[in-house]
Amino acid sequence: MVKRNLYLNVIPVEEALERYLSVIRERVAVKTEHIPVVHSLGRVTVSAIYAKYNSPLYNSAAMDGIAVAANKTTAASDIHPLVLHKDEYVIVDTGDPVHEPYDAVIMAENLIETGNGEIQITEPAMSWQHVRPVGEDIVAHELILTSNHTIRPIDIGVLLSAGITEVEVYRQINVAIFATGTEIIEPNEQIEDGSIIESNSRMFEGLVTEQGAKAHRLGILKDDYALIRNSVKEACAKYDMVIVNAGSSAGTEDFTVHVLRELGEVFVHGVAIKPGKPVILAMVGKTPVVGLPGYPVSAYICYQNFVRPLINYMQNTLDTQSETVEAYLSKRLVSSLKHKEYVRVKVGKVDDKIIATPLARGAGAAMSLVRADGFCVIEQNQEGLEAGEKVTVELCRTVDEIEHTVVSIGSHDLILDVLADMIPNKYKNMHLSSSHVGSMAGLMALKRGEAHIAPIHLLDEETGTYNIAIIKKMFGNSGRHMALIKGLKRVQGFIVPKGNPKHITEIHDVTTCRYVNRQSGAGTRVLFDYLLRKNGISPAEVNGYDKEIATHMAVAALVQSGAVDCGMGIESAARAMDLDFVPVGFEEYDFAIEGHKLTLPHVRAFIEVLKSVEFKEKVMQLGGYEFTNSGEIVKIL
Amino acid sequence: MVKRNLYLNVIPVEEALERYLSVIRERVAVKTEHIPVVHSLGRVTVSAIYAKYNSPLYNSAAMDGIAVAANKTTAASDIHPLVLHKDEYVIVDTGDPVHEPYDAVIMAENLIETGNGEIQITEPAMSWQHVRPVGEDIVAHELILTSNHTIRPIDIGVLLSAGITEVEVYRQINVAIFATGTEIIEPNEQIEDGSIIESNSRMFEGLVTEQGAKAHRLGILKDDYALIRNSVKEACAKYDMVIVNAGSSAGTEDFTVHVLRELGEVFVHGVAIKPGKPVILAMVGKTPVVGLPGYPVSAYICYQNFVRPLINYMQNTLDTQSETVEAYLSKRLVSSLKHKEYVRVKVGKVDDKIIATPLARGAGAAMSLVRADGFCVIEQNQEGLEAGEKVTVELCRTVDEIEHTVVSIGSHDLILDVLADMIPNKYKNMHLSSSHVGSMAGLMALKRGEAHIAPIHLLDEETGTYNIAIIKKMFGNSGRHMALIKGLKRVQGFIVPKGNPKHITEIHDVTTCRYVNRQSGAGTRVLFDYLLRKNGISPAEVNGYDKEIATHMAVAALVQSGAVDCGMGIESAARAMDLDFVPVGFEEYDFAIEGHKLTLPHVRAFIEVLKSVEFKEKVMQLGGYEFTNSGEIVKIL
Repeated sequence: MVKRNLYLNVIPVEEALERYLSVIRERVAVKTEHIPVVHSLGRVTVSAIYAKYNSPLYNSAAMDGIAVAANKTTAASDIHPLVLHKDEYVIVDTGDPVHEPYDAVIMAENLIETGNGEIQITEPAMSWQHVRPVGEDIVAHELILTSNHTIRPIDIGVLLSAGITEVEVYRQINVAIFATGTEIIEPNEQIEDGSIIESNSRMFEGLVTEQGAKAHRLGILKDDYALIRNSVKEACAKYDMVIVNAGSSAGTEDFTVHVLRELGEVFVHGVAIKPGKPVILAMVGKTPVVGLPGYPVSAYICYQNFVRPLINYMQNTLDTQSETVEAYLSKRLVSSLKHKEYVRVKVGKVDDKIIATPLARGAGAAMSLVRADGFCVIEQNQEGLEAGEKVTVELCRTVDEIEHTVVSIGSHDLILDVLADMIPNKYKNMHLSSSHVGSMAGLMALKRGEAHIAPIHLLDEETGTYNIAIIKKMFGNSGRHMALIKGLKRVQGFIVPKGNPKHITEIHDVTTCRYVNRQSGAGTRVLFDYLLRKNGISPAEVNGYDKEIATHMAVAALVQSGAVDCGMGIESAARAMDLDFVPVGFEEYDFAIEGHKLTLPHVRAFIEVLKSVEFKEKVMQLGGYEFTNSGEIVKIL
Repeated sequence: MVKRNLYLNVIPVEEALERYLSVIRERVAVKTEHIPVVHSLGRVTVSAIYAKYNSPLYNSAAMDGIAVAANKTTAASDIHPLVLHKDEYVIVDTGDPVHEPYDAVIMAENLIETGNGEIQITEPAMSWQHVRPVGEDIVAHELILTSNHTIRPIDIGVLLSAGITEVEVYRQINVAIFATGTEIIEPNEQIEDGSIIESNSRMFEGLVTEQGAKAHRLGILKDDYALIRNSVKEACAKYDMVIVNAGSSAGTEDFTVHVLRELGEVFVHGVAIKPGKPVILAMVGKTPVVGLPGYPVSAYICYQNFVRPLINYMQNTLDTQSETVEAYLSKRLVSSLKHKEYVRVKVGKVDDKIIATPLARGAGAAMSLVRADGFCVIEQNQEGLEAGEKVTVELCRTVDEIEHTVVSIGSHDLILDVLADMIPNKYKNMHLSSSHVGSMAGLMALKRGEAHIAPIHLLDEETGTYNIAIIKKMFGNSGRHMALIKGLKRVQGFIVPKGNPKHITEIHDVTTCRYVNRQSGAGTRVLFDYLLRKNGISPAEVNGYDKEIATHMAVAALVQSGAVDCGMGIESAARAMDLDFVPVGFEEYDFAIEGHKLTLPHVRAFIEVLKSVEFKEKVMQLGGYEFTNSGEIVKIL
């Protein structure tokens, strides 16, 4: 078997960064350049900038009117107007210079023209009246901008007015980005078995650009030691910094660390960070080279922790601090003492309490980054965090947005996507954020005050009714006023491959195929278990009963991949994936809510959209739904 | 006299904007375009985007190791290791596909190679172990981004992984910018009498760019009706929006409104906003044209109030809300019921109270925009705001920065610029903000708790000493502990033109020239008045005694302009302006402070910089200073 770098030398995040930056500070000079002021937006000044000229450049009229010598106007009064002859004044517009012997301006509104260029005034002018003295705005040699100032549009205006046309700023650095891996393809290339679409380098491009540096994506390198070595070597000679993506872990074909050891010096290989461990911090000559892991979440978190401060140092740019809030954790988080962990969370405000709900923690879960409202950090010396514990969340959204977001925790349905898209479109700054944990877990979250609404579809076996009975059972003694926002009816059934090759037509057929199950507590699971019991089928008879998956769409995807033959789910999921569907029956999918939350503006927006014709039209296109009384409120307790 | 548009039809800000936007919404379609995802950073989605592919694309290895069929490994145990032959497994790296018959991955660490491609395992593999199922991260047809979403680097990565290579986004609009005015010159052109350096259009370029639109500066148009008409007409055919700068007021050569009336329709001319009244909101064909006033502050405020929302509408971009704080106003502000006024303020936190101190209110005071920490709005229906009143300030700086800023209110000296530049350089995120109001007003501000330090140079006529006596008098009965941070000694004297043409050598000579005075309460004014009294000179004998100006540099600028012959001030100001200087004597320039504020981290940074060798070196270059015990603390009360 090919040699593996199994033993990464894992060190704490802060130590790794400091070890690397101390080398960088010693070996890499921060570069500056002189550029025209008109191109300096967003750049950072190297030294203080002082005005060259006064502004205004001369004593000038502050009004439209005439410039006069004040001491020649003292005789003017209402009773005895003074007539000024054309050699005793000049007409001025705002901004025109006022020169000796003139030292005052009389506004056009106060003048009476009497012909022959003669003007009557009825009031004496005060010396300096309506005159802007030279340098009133900017005095030559006055400080305009301090060093380390990020230049704004208004600064550009003032610099030019003050006679400055060139500024010294920190140079934008050029960052080369390589993707590596024989299995990696460009987004437009033909997908083969084993293909992975290259996307990290494009994310890095964006991150580098957002920092004000220049990104140069140099394409994908196959897993070929010589090719990688030569390409990296060349880039190090040409660019200020190089990022090599993937090939930083200990896999069979991970050449990066060997290449960097040959070309230069590796200071860190392996950091106690999760996701993200296999990061490489190296130098080739005077060029910093960072090897970042291949999993998108690891890549993102390592960029933020190592590349961001490096670029900030090299360009002398200040870091933009993300906003933080104190939130209560909705779920226990166990973490290892071996690393500092970045957990993506959804954040919502329910009853004046900000709640953070952890998202998928896998390094490959890029969608969790897209869906995240923020990050919660578990320090290396912490074993984890308890449910209900107060934590600090670094936000990716604004607090204002979070305060106007309906937090939905419960069962998954495709209509939640439709609602999430429609709500902010119809109601500015109102949002829906949903976590998919199944119906029962949704009701539990509602009970703990972590959600505004819980989408559920729970059959009561005794009464054969949906949702109301279970809410009565769970909240009957709580003293809380509970209600149901009626959703819709949807068809449940078996999702099977196109053509239904295993001929699945009813519940007994699942014992003869490879099945994929939903997690316990999911409404679909409750229905499946009910059907098994009713038909006297034991779970042991179902091949795949233990293979649990969290959403209808994930079930459909597994069926489509051929890995399983059947799973239970909703018709819209089967349709979306172009699969066949064997209906079992309609069920009611509604939203449980505490009565007093019905008046919240964002909940009202949610209800209005649910009632709207556009919503129904969009959902009908998905297929497998029926509407009767969507958006209606049913008081239960 | 040339016709003037004296009577602008002045309407309230909100009404003007709504009147205009309602026309725009009716006549201007928001445009969209399809662009490659790799170029979509910062753009806004038009509709919801759903995944095209699953990610991963197939069931794949989550670890480096071997893929096996779990049901063939059940026999493995520590005691009876199982040997897998080379046709019973495949080697996989993380991300490699796992196909039937394989359904589990065993980590490389748990394998014992026994030669001939045979591998021993000591534990059965569980079905699906270390396998990422197809679509674990992204399921095809899943919602990735909602409509109206601003695309971030991570979104680009996920879109590409999900098979999306093109997105529909709102089109960036093209904004043409004209400067007008015969007196206007480009920054590099030769300055003539009456020249005004063009800078507003460059500020607009920056503001337009910051909003994500494309700015096209089309140069300066002379005041020529036909030229302006033809240029604007041409631009309206080619660009999405046109800004015409200046020529929007009622001056003799303000053609813009006439041009726009001829070419199209003017909806608003004149808005009740200060600074900024003469704004023009018009349409030529389907192109919005905005005429903005020429004074920089008016131009800026009108851009923010009218152009910004217009661009946001046309590109469907969200407005970035500036952070606001509640602050206490340090000074009474009188405003007219005729307009809504935007007052630039400095903001500082003193003793847990955020204080807003108004800056220069003139429309021409562009430096007040550079120096501003924020804006305080006086609504049209308010006659003003009282000192001590609680106001909302829209911030241009972060709250964190404001909390680490030493607020200095008092006498002006050039060393304050040097300190303001050096402090954040030596102490990250520590700042100095100074307002120049004179020594006495500085002490009053200190008394009211509006400043940390008050730079003063106040001679006590009885004792002939500086600063200590006056603090004892002012704070003696207050029960407060007062101290002085020693500053430096500086030379005061007469600033006169090069060559001293009026032969000013001592105080009596000011009666034979045109003098410019400092405002009452300024230390320099106290000194001047003292000298007059001591020499039996009456203020009435001084030509210009009533002409008051607020800083040493402004005095020097007026002397340099030839408008006055002499003014009192410090040597460094005379030197900076290359003027002559007639010394009168040394004075002590120190910083008054309450004792308990000496331990604040930002005040400590201030003191450390004051003590530093670098500071002394820089100040010695200015000339006219002497150091003895800078940074030393003298306890007074």
